[in-house]
Amino acid sequence: MTDSGTDFDVLIVGGGPGGYVAAIRAAQLGLRTALVEKDKLGGICLNWGCIPTKALLRSADVLRTVKHAAQFGVRVAAPQADVPAMVERSRAVAMQLNKGVAQLMKKNGVSVIAGHARLTGKGRVQIESNDASATNVSANHIILATGARARELPVFPADGGESVWTYREALVPPRLPSSMLIVGAGAIGIEFACFYRAVGVEVAVVEMAERILPMEDEEVSAHVAASLQRDGIRLHAGATIRSAVRRDERWHVELQDQTIQAEVVLVAAGIVGNVEDLGLENTAVRVEKTHIVTDAHCQTAEPGVYAIGDVAGAPWLAHKASHEGLLCVEHIAGLATHALDPLKIPACTYGHPQVASVGLTEARARAAGHRIKVGKFPFAANGKAIAMGATGGFAKVVFDEVSGELLGAHMVGEEVTEMIQGFVIAQTLETTEAELMAAVLPHPTMSEAMHEAVLGAWGRTLHL
Amino acid sequence: MTDSGTDFDVLIVGGGPGGYVAAIRAAQLGLRTALVEKDKLGGICLNWGCIPTKALLRSADVLRTVKHAAQFGVRVAAPQADVPAMVERSRAVAMQLNKGVAQLMKKNGVSVIAGHARLTGKGRVQIESNDASATNVSANHIILATGARARELPVFPADGGESVWTYREALVPPRLPSSMLIVGAGAIGIEFACFYRAVGVEVAVVEMAERILPMEDEEVSAHVAASLQRDGIRLHAGATIRSAVRRDERWHVELQDQTIQAEVVLVAAGIVGNVEDLGLENTAVRVEKTHIVTDAHCQTAEPGVYAIGDVAGAPWLAHKASHEGLLCVEHIAGLATHALDPLKIPACTYGHPQVASVGLTEARARAAGHRIKVGKFPFAANGKAIAMGATGGFAKVVFDEVSGELLGAHMVGEEVTEMIQGFVIAQTLETTEAELMAAVLPHPTMSEAMHEAVLGAWGRTLHL
Repeated sequence: MTDSGTDFDVLIVGGGPGGYVAAIRAAQLGLRTALVEKDKLGGICLNWGCIPTKALLRSADVLRTVKHAAQFGVRVAAPQADVPAMVERSRAVAMQLNKGVAQLMKKNGVSVIAGHARLTGKGRVQIESNDASATNVSANHIILATGARARELPVFPADGGESVWTYREALVPPRLPSSMLIVGAGAIGIEFACFYRAVGVEVAVVEMAERILPMEDEEVSAHVAASLQRDGIRLHAGATIRSAVRRDERWHVELQDQTIQAEVVLVAAGIVGNVEDLGLENTAVRVEKTHIVTDAHCQTAEPGVYAIGDVAGAPWLAHKASHEGLLCVEHIAGLATHALDPLKIPACTYGHPQVASVGLTEARARAAGHRIKVGKFPFAANGKAIAMGATGGFAKVVFDEVSGELLGAHMVGEEVTEMIQGFVIAQTLETTEAELMAAVLPHPTMSEAMHEAVLGAWGRTLHL
Repeated sequence: MTDSGTDFDVLIVGGGPGGYVAAIRAAQLGLRTALVEKDKLGGICLNWGCIPTKALLRSADVLRTVKHAAQFGVRVAAPQADVPAMVERSRAVAMQLNKGVAQLMKKNGVSVIAGHARLTGKGRVQIESNDASATNVSANHIILATGARARELPVFPADGGESVWTYREALVPPRLPSSMLIVGAGAIGIEFACFYRAVGVEVAVVEMAERILPMEDEEVSAHVAASLQRDGIRLHAGATIRSAVRRDERWHVELQDQTIQAEVVLVAAGIVGNVEDLGLENTAVRVEKTHIVTDAHCQTAEPGVYAIGDVAGAPWLAHKASHEGLLCVEHIAGLATHALDPLKIPACTYGHPQVASVGLTEARARAAGHRIKVGKFPFAANGKAIAMGATGGFAKVVFDEVSGELLGAHMVGEEVTEMIQGFVIAQTLETTEAELMAAVLPHPTMSEAMHEAVLGAWGRTLHL
């Protein structure tokens, strides 16, 4: 695998979580490794996605906690949201992590090359640096980890961030609008809805699917919808945008049954893979619907060329990307690897409330032909949640009735994004209900609701 | 098992988490079930322990969040701690849960008998009600779940809660003292230290063992100690109390090397089992060091008499009690059960920071003769923790080097009490490092530090 006739054993294109984790693992395995990135190390996730949104949402949580402090015996005057300070903190967090990735590359001996990479065939890559000079390098293995970007909607043409935003503008808002229409009720749309509502913006969300968070279990979607509506967010699911006109410094967006006005539109309606201008035409790499087609080892149709993360298709999640990075590199190094099972990859939405899930929803489990047992336990009946004042939400589990296999787990409520890992570990270990029932979860914790949901699926709930 | 010649199939003495969970399970299994409780349903845990302390600690967390709100972009004036309101909320939470247990008993058809139970031999129990009238009932199986109470220290004689407190007074303080000496640095002592320090009390903690939280991993103890000291709590580990004198409305407590003064002393130096006045002398039940001796099925030396929870010995944890309740009743009902493995029972301390652990510490694993691999990952290198402003603490894991078995997991930091369940599930499933590495934990979460700690034990850390 190490061939001194080439510049590198592994060359990775794209420095997001998939790319830089692949680079670290490759270096750990003794491979001569290079990482090409034209923008910032850490990619969208770290610079414009997962991380800075969590910082903003933390600020929203702090604001909410202050507003409700009196009920916990803390006397305090009404708080003021300092959105520029929130944004500044969010950027500082992103910058700290961006620098951290640079240090990790240095420490691991990964060659970082700034520039845009184009495959020129047969393991060769031309790198155009930001000053337009070009160098050519060669590698035995090339991993494409170029990520994805927000899908643009023709009805809302980009206007330089003036009135049509993507997550980029939403993370560094040029101003705080009085009203915002968010197009798309997936994780990104819902997270920004929660943040902007928390800081006082009038927020409406439009979603084509019949419900918000359409990939989640129906009961989860319903719970989140009710909660957002209580917070004053207007939700329009099953909606089609008939037309949109900018007039008098507002968007007038016509749905089937009504017209919504908003100062700013935030487009969060899916993503497209970054497959352009990579020189794929010089290879056998296949692209379908803006994503590179790969096999279980992240291999493309071109020998020696791999793709991982968002550019290689759904689920568009950083942890999927980084695990693909590990698997891809370990396969290159000749280690035994297992393909990722999409049913064992969790998904989280960090709104208020939080959502976390893994595996099949109740409806999908039925559709897949399983005879199922379903258990659900509300945090309202959980002692720790009552003590915390965090009684919204529930844990829900779906088991195969015959085998006892845990098919899916769905949680909504406070801190559930930190709890779902227990179910992920259980699913990865292919556990059954008997083993989960035998696990002694600590008291008092909200995680006991997970245990109760399992008991409930078999008619043995204790605290209901 | 059902013998209509007796009043009940199962009679449970004590309505704490062990007792009432046993009652629910017994009723689920169709057994004629009675629960005798002389005080409040829910026991110490629910009324005077786990639950109301969590409510107070939540208030302390809210207070801390408000104080640090500015760094998250939330402008607010300095808050004031309204301790009576915090206490009132804590009592309301306990009362809500207490009523909940009463409802659960009713719903499950459990006969609740208020009074003090004494075994009179051969499955017979005399119940002295609170008005001193006595009734006699019979049961095929008697489960003792009478719990435990704070150990008294002769050097600090009880004075009606004036200047010597236990957790009872600490939960409903007659006044807020200016200074407090806490004797004992286990979970209870540390939790109260954190609460009272948060609301402005000068707090010192005295511990006989060489370190605070002496049952926890040494690195955990050291981290918590440094954190508490930063918060202004004075810690005196490895300390012996030579004498204590009450003078001028203060305790003067002489240690080896110095004298500490405090307005109030909180005694949190262990517990003793409630084995008195239960009529055990009429049975073959054996008691050792204030605890009832039982076998793996919670059976005492007296046929048909069982003991569960605190009265049956360490670990003195509500979740140990409730699982023993389940196991004991299922054994009575003739179901196959497994004995609890103490190495798979987690323990939590809900101070600031929180602590959660399961299994062997590094030192105990070595002492047990294991060749081990240890991994540790700090939250300071975790993206979500940085975004949350929650970078203190770490996850640490101990593996058997030969078998790859997860021997122990130790966490300190924010929300770790909700995270430890993943490791508990992993240990219950007897997982190895390879399986844990394959688990795809969601990004960005603090739980990723658990995955990184596992990788680190095998030299494969990514983000350090």
